[in-house]
Amino acid sequence: MKIAVLGGTGHIGIGLSLRLAIAGYDVIVGSRKVEKAQQKAEEYKACLEGRDAKGKITGESNEKAAKLADVSILTIPFKYAYETAESLKDCLVGKIVVSPVVPMEKRGKFLLYSPPPEGSAAEKIASILSESKVVSAFQTIPAEKFANLDASFDWDVPVCGDDEDSKKIVLEIVNKIDGLRGLDAGPLIVSRLVESVTPLLINVAIRNKEKDLSLKFV
Amino acid sequence: MKIAVLGGTGHIGIGLSLRLAIAGYDVIVGSRKVEKAQQKAEEYKACLEGRDAKGKITGESNEKAAKLADVSILTIPFKYAYETAESLKDCLVGKIVVSPVVPMEKRGKFLLYSPPPEGSAAEKIASILSESKVVSAFQTIPAEKFANLDASFDWDVPVCGDDEDSKKIVLEIVNKIDGLRGLDAGPLIVSRLVESVTPLLINVAIRNKEKDLSLKFV
Repeated sequence: MKIAVLGGTGHIGIGLSLRLAIAGYDVIVGSRKVEKAQQKAEEYKACLEGRDAKGKITGESNEKAAKLADVSILTIPFKYAYETAESLKDCLVGKIVVSPVVPMEKRGKFLLYSPPPEGSAAEKIASILSESKVVSAFQTIPAEKFANLDASFDWDVPVCGDDEDSKKIVLEIVNKIDGLRGLDAGPLIVSRLVESVTPLLINVAIRNKEKDLSLKFV
Repeated sequence: MKIAVLGGTGHIGIGLSLRLAIAGYDVIVGSRKVEKAQQKAEEYKACLEGRDAKGKITGESNEKAAKLADVSILTIPFKYAYETAESLKDCLVGKIVVSPVVPMEKRGKFLLYSPPPEGSAAEKIASILSESKVVSAFQTIPAEKFANLDASFDWDVPVCGDDEDSKKIVLEIVNKIDGLRGLDAGPLIVSRLVESVTPLLINVAIRNKEKDLSLKFV
């Protein structure tokens, strides 16, 4: 299975690209500029040297990556997520699109959740990509620790989506990544509850001088 | 220290009354009717027989319990929480009041978070109890397992509040309960992020045939 990590040149895209390749998926790193995508793909391959990664990593423009892949993950900073979804709409028709997007705002020293009128970033993206199957996941994964291949963790990943088959496929992908447990959290509307955990994790981390906090349901 | 568990005759009030007494606090179970409160206090004392509970449990009307206690926990079902806070306003002036209240609504087979215009139940309660020091905590504790004294668990309890001294006192109380770790999650405004975790926990539990899920930050 081919997975596109769109905008996969920073943030959570790094860890996802590396760990999906280790899990055996062919990863297409997408970027607005194909040169940047290819350069990052080379960097990621270098990171995997000496590790048993069965999946291939290549780099393409976001458009081509979206077209080539079975599943696309929108690892785009919140500020640009909606316009990027809009611009890739035609390339994503009929495909599974994963939203890890979390809209947040700073209020003094703290972060709050600032969902769009649609209720959550995932629902807004689903309204833009009306001919794709949108599933949300990975919102609560701390990017830095996730990108560190020597780090070990045991995190739960709530997965939401209205199309049960697509959600099952995404759950399978999550569960193939070492240290993650995918949990069906219900339809896409539940994404708002998952997305709002992210600013909570960051607030608790800052306030308690911790780093890289994620979630476990116990 | 005396802690009132207002409306403490059901739900999370049972576990809190028992476990606070075990932790050494004097617990005043509050109810609208003093007879019901005293009857529950007797039941709780019977539950503690053979256990080393250093705190005393007594029963009083909500009003008297609120007046006698240093800290009051509003273990009131969401539907009645605001009117109860309103009716106890005068008895709670200058006191620490803990809100575990979570407003939820059913949407099909799923629960969503339905905060009041103030942003969260805790903030609404703080606006009603304008002369009390409102702290939020315990929203994500599954009532049934918490009430079972033979159950063991390892749960994190985010604590929010605008008055730092009151928040510290509540964190201390949380940390004295075996199996709970209190974590400062910031000012009261962050309560909305904590409250919205509760319907997520319930949704994940239902969907994955689990029970009594709570939260651990890892």
